Amino acid sequence: MCLSHAVLDDDYRQYQQALLGAGLLVSSGVPGVYGLSGLFEGIVEAFERYVTRMGQHLTPEVIRFPPLLSRETYLRTDHIETFPDLMGSVHSFVGNEGDHLRLVQKKENGEAWTENLEPTDVMLVPAACYPLYPAAANTTLPEEGRVVDLRAFVFRHEPSPDPARMQTFRQREYVTLGTAEQALAHRDYWLKRGEELLGALGLDVKPVIANDPFFGRGGRVMAATQKEQALKYELVAPIASTEKLTAISSSNCHLDHFGREFNIKTPDGQFAHTACIGFGLERITLALLKKHGFDPATWPSETRSLLEI
Amino acid sequence: MCLSHAVLDDDYRQYQQALLGAGLLVSSGVPGVYGLSGLFEGIVEAFERYVTRMGQHLTPEVIRFPPLLSRETYLRTDHIETFPDLMGSVHSFVGNEGDHLRLVQKKENGEAWTENLEPTDVMLVPAACYPLYPAAANTTLPEEGRVVDLRAFVFRHEPSPDPARMQTFRQREYVTLGTAEQALAHRDYWLKRGEELLGALGLDVKPVIANDPFFGRGGRVMAATQKEQALKYELVAPIASTEKLTAISSSNCHLDHFGREFNIKTPDGQFAHTACIGFGLERITLALLKKHGFDPATWPSETRSLLEI
Repeated sequence: MCLSHAVLDDDYRQYQQALLGAGLLVSSGVPGVYGLSGLFEGIVEAFERYVTRMGQHLTPEVIRFPPLLSRETYLRTDHIETFPDLMGSVHSFVGNEGDHLRLVQKKENGEAWTENLEPTDVMLVPAACYPLYPAAANTTLPEEGRVVDLRAFVFRHEPSPDPARMQTFRQREYVTLGTAEQALAHRDYWLKRGEELLGALGLDVKPVIANDPFFGRGGRVMAATQKEQALKYELVAPIASTEKLTAISSSNCHLDHFGREFNIKTPDGQFAHTACIGFGLERITLALLKKHGFDPATWPSETRSLLEI
Repeated sequence: MCLSHAVLDDDYRQYQQALLGAGLLVSSGVPGVYGLSGLFEGIVEAFERYVTRMGQHLTPEVIRFPPLLSRETYLRTDHIETFPDLMGSVHSFVGNEGDHLRLVQKKENGEAWTENLEPTDVMLVPAACYPLYPAAANTTLPEEGRVVDLRAFVFRHEPSPDPARMQTFRQREYVTLGTAEQALAHRDYWLKRGEELLGALGLDVKPVIANDPFFGRGGRVMAATQKEQALKYELVAPIASTEKLTAISSSNCHLDHFGREFNIKTPDGQFAHTACIGFGLERITLALLKKHGFDPATWPSETRSLLEI
């Protein structure tokens, strides 16, 4: 196990260096936090246009949430119970001038200077669809449900040498809110459609049941339940390692978890079920660069034509 | 003064309600943190394409930084000295299962649950150009200097009812690194060009010397120096208040502040000077919506033609 980790870490570091060396990623000095080159971002944008075309027939509402959500909303999801180690809590300085002098003094002495910061009203967004549920709270859905097109920067505190495991990255999502049948149909439709549309770009994706890294002992039970319930699937592809595949997309049915917490109802008075497909924009770009090489001008003509690049 | 603040706050709340009511902004429950509708985001994207065309002749390098930068970099800027009250420090949970049980218990009891979180290696980005300087550290610039096209989400902890005063928003920037003359020329060029290109869209902008809200008593001295040195200019326009104008763009020369700290040199061995123009993407969109109305289909044909919408 240790050896295998070491081999993997070597693979990760080697591929990270290749991407940094080619200027596709720009180091921030922190593992998993990178600037993206214009070429990299151009692929992200091209993929987004492609996904927009693929979802057009659903005439989704479009909302773009920022990287922050309300602390109160965060606490109404179960993230603090299930993934506390991945959270990002935003703190700031709210003291007076004397407090400020002491703060700067601590910083200058190389001491721990953050102790007296105060938590703000916001947290970093853990998943692109979380900010949507409070915005839909206490409403009754139309008969046909709602389909919403989202994109947001999300945060996961998991520093890693794997260039595909970024601490901050963008998820593009199609979320549905509706009946149990509508939610399950959305997940199944997009799981199949996601596999097709990523496959059409030449990516070797395959669906697997998700295996999320729930925290602690209780988390191991949750992971087993997640596997058993088979509610969330991932589409995995090779990026830095061809041995350990990386999830580049996932399609997930939340049952009435959010509908119940945020009091979202179907027309017949039931709590709404929700489901989403998420596309990891940076990971999909990395998978394309891995599969077709670092120069999009040399990519297969079908891929270039679908991406309109 | 108090009355004037109250009147202003009424103006702000009224315009915020109008934007929320029209669905252009989506409430997160926290002042200054909003989802943006597809229509709003479409204007942002159109303006970005316009700015890209306006900067094309400079053949800038393009880098897109995420909303986070390294804590070490943050401490090497003087943000903690000058704007500590605006900072965003990212904290997470790094304990064991017992710690986690106590954390969740505190949350369930409605107690302060963040006390035992630990600071991570990252901070929220205070200004879009900050992540660039460490990436250029310990280099010597080419004769012609460097011009870099940036866009990033930035954070300012200043909750406000003013819809233009967001806590998280995007800055699009052109930054130059070069000699003192190159930096000053960049600032002056873009101050004039920025006024022209915003004016061409029908916005009533005018340049004013910047008046940044430096913290505390020391900050008042810095504000006076900033005014005296006249290094930073803002382009202001009416948004929620026609009385108190809002900066929608700013053009700033940093002298060798960053060049010295990050050891960036010109070919003749001097510390590099830097300068940037920043476009506040959400504020420019709000200014356009204020000036021309909430429906881009009815905007003046010249504005629509320049924005290609």
